[in-house]
Amino acid sequence: MDRLKIEVCVSPALFPYYENRDAIVVVTDILRASSAIVTAFMNGVERIIPVGTLEEAKAYKDKGYMVAAERDGIVRDFADFGNSPYNFTPERVRGNQIVYSTTNGTNAIQLASSGAQVLIGAYLNLSALAGHIREEGRDLLVLCAGWKNKFNLEDTLFAGALAQKVLEDQRYYTICDATLASIDLYAAARDNMMGYIEKVAQRHRLKKNNLDDVIGYCHELDLTDLIPALQGDSLVPVMNQ
Amino acid sequence: MDRLKIEVCVSPALFPYYENRDAIVVVTDILRASSAIVTAFMNGVERIIPVGTLEEAKAYKDKGYMVAAERDGIVRDFADFGNSPYNFTPERVRGNQIVYSTTNGTNAIQLASSGAQVLIGAYLNLSALAGHIREEGRDLLVLCAGWKNKFNLEDTLFAGALAQKVLEDQRYYTICDATLASIDLYAAARDNMMGYIEKVAQRHRLKKNNLDDVIGYCHELDLTDLIPALQGDSLVPVMNQ
Repeated sequence: MDRLKIEVCVSPALFPYYENRDAIVVVTDILRASSAIVTAFMNGVERIIPVGTLEEAKAYKDKGYMVAAERDGIVRDFADFGNSPYNFTPERVRGNQIVYSTTNGTNAIQLASSGAQVLIGAYLNLSALAGHIREEGRDLLVLCAGWKNKFNLEDTLFAGALAQKVLEDQRYYTICDATLASIDLYAAARDNMMGYIEKVAQRHRLKKNNLDDVIGYCHELDLTDLIPALQGDSLVPVMNQ
Repeated sequence: MDRLKIEVCVSPALFPYYENRDAIVVVTDILRASSAIVTAFMNGVERIIPVGTLEEAKAYKDKGYMVAAERDGIVRDFADFGNSPYNFTPERVRGNQIVYSTTNGTNAIQLASSGAQVLIGAYLNLSALAGHIREEGRDLLVLCAGWKNKFNLEDTLFAGALAQKVLEDQRYYTICDATLASIDLYAAARDNMMGYIEKVAQRHRLKKNNLDDVIGYCHELDLTDLIPALQGDSLVPVMNQ
């Protein structure tokens, strides 16, 4: 029986030390980029083009693309809208292509592109994602977008939730301390997630800008089976690849 | 009242994002460098010169210094001994200067030298260390040596133990997610530390080389009040500075 490895990388700055070209890399930025991307596909977006810099985003805007762009939670003036999942409404996104640039998440997606497959993970598609990974039968590396290369709790908790679900398949194992820590933190938080998430730094940042209305939504489980995957420079649903 | 900040940096590769020149930086490498350094001072070493590379360590050896040097747990052939705290016996170290180079710990010490004070932390000196930090009344940044820039559990658990003790002083606060995670992980582990530590990757590495005899010792609490501190390029006990 093949033994399949699970690792968690808690910051994009640590990705070079974990890189595994055979692995499926799941990028997560729970508050809010990966939750927003999954929501956009739920609402019918055709493709999302993640870009690292605001300059790239603005260049796309000048070419007529619809652009979502924020830094530190604040929508940029040239953009059509920002990073809240609630912005990606069916009226706006159905059948469209959207260029997207955020503080942490979109850079992490570009960084992850060395993996065998790059998927976008959120609580919203957790079970479908775990099922797909197990079907593919590949190693799993969860890349937490973090906050400006620092460790963050909300992404680490999600990494623990995903690792635990994939480990239910006996082919999978982990000897990665970050994975073990993530699983233990998720176990401590899961029965009172909204109480636990009260303390995380990103909640305070969002609250300061009245952007914390999405926190409950971003922790809802399994609203969709859609899994955004990187294909070339764009995200498309995994079923269409 | 001054508000004093606590942060935890889970990997040397993330240190640039946490750097705080006003902070006391506590470097920890529980299995085994920081436990060995504290033990050496308990046993009367005069000073320890931490060096990053084996080349530097060998150059000191050629000049007649006593040298402790290992990589991946294995003592190097030119060295007098390796990284086990049990190597730093009173017979060997009392009144001596020792040059020391390890896989993770000594590089982390050099990296930390931008802090206002650099101290070496282990369970062996935990309470004395927390007391000293509170007396100094400075911000605290705990730098985990990790494993080749990856997150490790045993250092993160210690960071949680230290953060929690320093937070008993009401002047201290934290909004750092890595600190909150460390505290929660330590809370999950503390009542059965040896059971918990069974799973960490470094325990498996040490066991493979029959070097795991020190794990219990490295988690003993408060065997000493001595606190090694960086002064120039050497570690000396903080009371002598």
